[in-house]
Amino acid sequence: MANTMLAVVKAEAAPGAEIREVKVPGFGRTDVLVKVKVASICGTDLHIYEWDRWSQGRVRVGVTTGHEFVGEIVAIGAEARGFALGERVACESHIVCGHCLPCRTGNGHVCENTRILGVDVNGGFAEYVAVPAVNAWRAPRNVPIEVAAVMEPCGNAVHTAFAGPLAACNIAVTGCGPIGLFAIGVARAAGAARVFASDVSPFRLDLARRMGADAVIDVAKELLVERVRELLGGQGLDGVLEMSGSPQAVRDGLAALRNGGRLSLLGLPKEPFELDWNRLVIFKGITVRGIIGRRMYETWYQLDNLLASGRLDLKPAITHVMPMERFEEAIGLLKSGGAGKVVLVPWGEDA
Amino acid sequence: MANTMLAVVKAEAAPGAEIREVKVPGFGRTDVLVKVKVASICGTDLHIYEWDRWSQGRVRVGVTTGHEFVGEIVAIGAEARGFALGERVACESHIVCGHCLPCRTGNGHVCENTRILGVDVNGGFAEYVAVPAVNAWRAPRNVPIEVAAVMEPCGNAVHTAFAGPLAACNIAVTGCGPIGLFAIGVARAAGAARVFASDVSPFRLDLARRMGADAVIDVAKELLVERVRELLGGQGLDGVLEMSGSPQAVRDGLAALRNGGRLSLLGLPKEPFELDWNRLVIFKGITVRGIIGRRMYETWYQLDNLLASGRLDLKPAITHVMPMERFEEAIGLLKSGGAGKVVLVPWGEDA
Amino acid sequence: MANTMLAVVKAEAAPGAEIREVKVPGFGRTDVLVKVKVASICGTDLHIYEWDRWSQGRVRVGVTTGHEFVGEIVAIGAEARGFALGERVACESHIVCGHCLPCRTGNGHVCENTRILGVDVNGGFAEYVAVPAVNAWRAPRNVPIEVAAVMEPCGNAVHTAFAGPLAACNIAVTGCGPIGLFAIGVARAAGAARVFASDVSPFRLDLARRMGADAVIDVAKELLVERVRELLGGQGLDGVLEMSGSPQAVRDGLAALRNGGRLSLLGLPKEPFELDWNRLVIFKGITVRGIIGRRMYETWYQLDNLLASGRLDLKPAITHVMPMERFEEAIGLLKSGGAGKVVLVPWGEDA
Amino acid sequence: MANTMLAVVKAEAAPGAEIREVKVPGFGRTDVLVKVKVASICGTDLHIYEWDRWSQGRVRVGVTTGHEFVGEIVAIGAEARGFALGERVACESHIVCGHCLPCRTGNGHVCENTRILGVDVNGGFAEYVAVPAVNAWRAPRNVPIEVAAVMEPCGNAVHTAFAGPLAACNIAVTGCGPIGLFAIGVARAAGAARVFASDVSPFRLDLARRMGADAVIDVAKELLVERVRELLGGQGLDGVLEMSGSPQAVRDGLAALRNGGRLSLLGLPKEPFELDWNRLVIFKGITVRGIIGRRMYETWYQLDNLLASGRLDLKPAITHVMPMERFEEAIGLLKSGGAGKVVLVPWGEDA
Repeated sequence: MANTMLAVVKAEAAPGAEIREVKVPGFGRTDVLVKVKVASICGTDLHIYEWDRWSQGRVRVGVTTGHEFVGEIVAIGAEARGFALGERVACESHIVCGHCLPCRTGNGHVCENTRILGVDVNGGFAEYVAVPAVNAWRAPRNVPIEVAAVMEPCGNAVHTAFAGPLAACNIAVTGCGPIGLFAIGVARAAGAARVFASDVSPFRLDLARRMGADAVIDVAKELLVERVRELLGGQGLDGVLEMSGSPQAVRDGLAALRNGGRLSLLGLPKEPFELDWNRLVIFKGITVRGIIGRRMYETWYQLDNLLASGRLDLKPAITHVMPMERFEEAIGLLKSGGAGKVVLVPWGEDA
Repeated sequence: MANTMLAVVKAEAAPGAEIREVKVPGFGRTDVLVKVKVASICGTDLHIYEWDRWSQGRVRVGVTTGHEFVGEIVAIGAEARGFALGERVACESHIVCGHCLPCRTGNGHVCENTRILGVDVNGGFAEYVAVPAVNAWRAPRNVPIEVAAVMEPCGNAVHTAFAGPLAACNIAVTGCGPIGLFAIGVARAAGAARVFASDVSPFRLDLARRMGADAVIDVAKELLVERVRELLGGQGLDGVLEMSGSPQAVRDGLAALRNGGRLSLLGLPKEPFELDWNRLVIFKGITVRGIIGRRMYETWYQLDNLLASGRLDLKPAITHVMPMERFEEAIGLLKSGGAGKVVLVPWGEDA
Repeated sequence: MANTMLAVVKAEAAPGAEIREVKVPGFGRTDVLVKVKVASICGTDLHIYEWDRWSQGRVRVGVTTGHEFVGEIVAIGAEARGFALGERVACESHIVCGHCLPCRTGNGHVCENTRILGVDVNGGFAEYVAVPAVNAWRAPRNVPIEVAAVMEPCGNAVHTAFAGPLAACNIAVTGCGPIGLFAIGVARAAGAARVFASDVSPFRLDLARRMGADAVIDVAKELLVERVRELLGGQGLDGVLEMSGSPQAVRDGLAALRNGGRLSLLGLPKEPFELDWNRLVIFKGITVRGIIGRRMYETWYQLDNLLASGRLDLKPAITHVMPMERFEEAIGLLKSGGAGKVVLVPWGEDA
Repeated sequence: MANTMLAVVKAEAAPGAEIREVKVPGFGRTDVLVKVKVASICGTDLHIYEWDRWSQGRVRVGVTTGHEFVGEIVAIGAEARGFALGERVACESHIVCGHCLPCRTGNGHVCENTRILGVDVNGGFAEYVAVPAVNAWRAPRNVPIEVAAVMEPCGNAVHTAFAGPLAACNIAVTGCGPIGLFAIGVARAAGAARVFASDVSPFRLDLARRMGADAVIDVAKELLVERVRELLGGQGLDGVLEMSGSPQAVRDGLAALRNGGRLSLLGLPKEPFELDWNRLVIFKGITVRGIIGRRMYETWYQLDNLLASGRLDLKPAITHVMPMERFEEAIGLLKSGGAGKVVLVPWGEDA
């Protein structure tokens, strides 16, 4: 194994990224070293690339970016348990402290001291990445490698979908970016009676259909609330999985819920926004849940089961496979809105 | 409308039943009168026919039997709300008091004063049956009438399946009588990752396969625990839906659960039986739930959604359609073990 | 019994109210007629008096106001079950349809067709009031009558407090109006480890202390978040019961929660307001629940148990007992902020 | 610090125990070494002493016994985080693997590979004990040291009590050994409306009263079901916390529950026993939960909050403080039934 490798590095406190030769990461006694096979690009990676306000306040300059990937274990720390060399693993990107109240009560996803791969510590847009062994997840064998590469973001969809009643329920997914697309598939596989999907992009709505949406709603042309009522014979939704971060989607989603329904919020709004709490939340007895990360590791078990059993197919949402070399082009593609999930193949690996 | 009709009556405190001409039932101001289109036979009907100990202590002699049916509304009480003449309805068979603590807290399925159609009050093995309007459930339009006829017993399966985690879980159904068969379909439709089914009858196991079981286990030949571990790569089940009433199935089901799993008990054992509580329940942190009836009416909404959305198909479990005239033959068929669900078509209706 | 009675009537579509002689209400076959013994004034009654925008759009002009009261049954409809003449009853003020999805699934508190006593139908600021028998609740015998009079609003507090983890939790109640004061007592009685209370009124904070608050926080002078952290040794709250309707209280309450905590919202904000969803809800994995009414009738059982067992004492929150004749004076007292709960004694009854 | 210490050792595969000089335990890099201040005796210690069948199959001969204790940290492993020398800690006695499904989903209490202090590895009936730092729990400062010594067994009571609805509920504790006594206090502190306690020993029932039981039931003289119905005006219990392991208590507890109630099982029956499942579990829609250990570490947070806030006082249940030197005498005392909780003070410490 060489001492250096190529990686996509956030080289400066400014927009952009740089492909650089860097040292192969060292690894601690409870870590594993992973040879990256396929990575995928998250909306967060876009923000880091564009160096938005959140990135400026959070991202460590010089970090190797990327937190969604699958790879092969090539080295194992002296006290890392549970893995063998050569095993294929996806990775939970949140490295949690294990000591705070949330960590100690099975809620590591809201750890008070989370460090994130590709944000706080070196990530997976590289030939190699070191991760704590507890963060590695053996990928199901019957799952294509590009699907294994998106287990982490699909875990967000699973967490959101499973954060309230789902089976036999009527559900809408607002926002058909990659996680929204995954959420459609997850909700179907996990027993939702009907899954509706909304977006403003005909391209994305087409992907939504291919992921199994029973109906798609182009909210550039139709009112979500009216269309839902029509589809449900006058009833409201049991649940909304909010994936867009759009204030209008939150408001419309709440309005489209039946009394007593639930809204699970994963999409990050760009800024604070206003709500008519009385009409949309209080009088209707709504439950709103903020969703972050993946339940560690309940979400992973759930996702593994859905994938390994063949109930869930994520392929329609993965629209592009590109060499990591073309990272900037991939970023441009995502910004153009002309892609679902884009996965990247590192130097020396086969697409 | 005539004043009299034919009905299957529990005429005497002895084994058997009699087809008799009886008065068309009167109906109260909050009732609807239903012209029965298709009925179906429950295990309970068998017990009543055979006049077992439970029947002797509970069933009113002279009652018109039958509590699973679908029909058409032909008359509506003065204060009965929500229905129009001619609508097709299935019926919840538990007539609950509305005044006890369970009823007043959304748990009518464990009402302290339940009266049951075909047991305590005249039921649906007849040309007409009167039921409280609140017990009538508009059958989904796209559902075949023989499927609508079995909504009540399928509701037992839904209640059992939904009494614990289901989506993305590995589930076994022990006992493939009609409700077990329905439960297989329900668990699949409601998002279970893998559904295994056990029984001692190859005929029933074949039906289980047709209802969507991922694997069937002939417990006359194989050990449930071993086969499950093999199917799950050494892991235990997340849940067991017990439909057989067999003490061995309960014990094996508990043994096949992973620590922290759940066992939902619907099958009625013939008599008290023994359990190694420490090993099977306490040390494993198991949750055991007794299941009776259907949640009123959450279960019906769930079942309606699963059927109307096309997620759930019950037809493979319905093996025989017979005229109600041949009630005794149908009973014999069920006792022989050579049937799944048997549905009956009353006099003057088309099969 | 006379044919007429005195009542506080919303006589005109304008601010104010009028004490009038009106007909004693008739009652239906499933109703009971109640001779009012003690009533109490809700914030809603203030809004109706002041004829705010909500009132203008909702309240029926000519209605007898008042929805919080206790009285004695003086007549029983032909089909009303469960009560005897002379029994003392409090009343659930929401008359629900019984037919919508929420009603049919044990969630009548979010019925789609609720009618409210004293808003949509004649209420209890009168000598007599007719209510559906199912809405009547036998007051626990060992509870003083003025406490029985406030069971309905205290039910709001119970519903809010019980809408998330409570036992062994650290809880803050934001807003110490009457329901906030009740909530302090309820949270203590129901096992919260520590109960903090915030308000801007020293008078109310003093009542909060008397209701059992472990610490009170004058948010006119102190920052809620800082004071809570100090009280909890740097930790956040497990839950916030929001009773003020103040946007600042909602924001501060969310900020004072630990990751994974819950905010239950009962206080009605005057208008839509803005939130930093990312920081306050999503990144922290918070659950926000809109609370309306009382769970029917789970909340009543809970409250009854807390009162009848002596665990909960509401008396410190009841600051004034006045004759109903002095209704306008009572309204003025409430507007002045110089009262906790004010109860009213109708004509001819003893204070 | 000396190299050797005194300890109560299970020296031979036979009844009895031996006080011996042994080596002060070594400790790993993630462990802390604790100087034991007060220990307490569990029923399990009795079984080990008596060398019952369970002990024969499980306990490692030569082990230092004892798993309930509080002490002071005297040494800290190189990678052990969160503690300083001199801190007073109680300890979770279950050392869990961290790798199995239960461990990875917040359910370490049902870890598939648990090792137990004083059973599988050297425990706390000694001058020193080494424990993983994650198992150490900083004792609340305002809690007397003998109470801190019983946090571990009281955690069993908390886990059992919190395994179902508690606040505003009517609860019975069957069996008033030490954990039953703790459970009475916990249920009271955590908001139960009424707590009844049953046992056959007047001595224990007297302790039950002192722990706050609203009523005690001597089941040697009274029928549990009848007495409960009488106390509740004809109603059933919301929950039973089973602490005796007596088959009769399980059956009576189930019979005394209202429909839909819950039974949480902590007491270990001596052998398998029989139940009338239909009548006691299925027809009533009961939830039975097997309880083992403490939720790690939710239970500890809950208990800490109840103790530190002063809501819960365990002192009445602690009837004897003895030097550890008199271990055999303490065992005899427990066997005689003439004690509640017995705590032991090691050599060189003050009682």
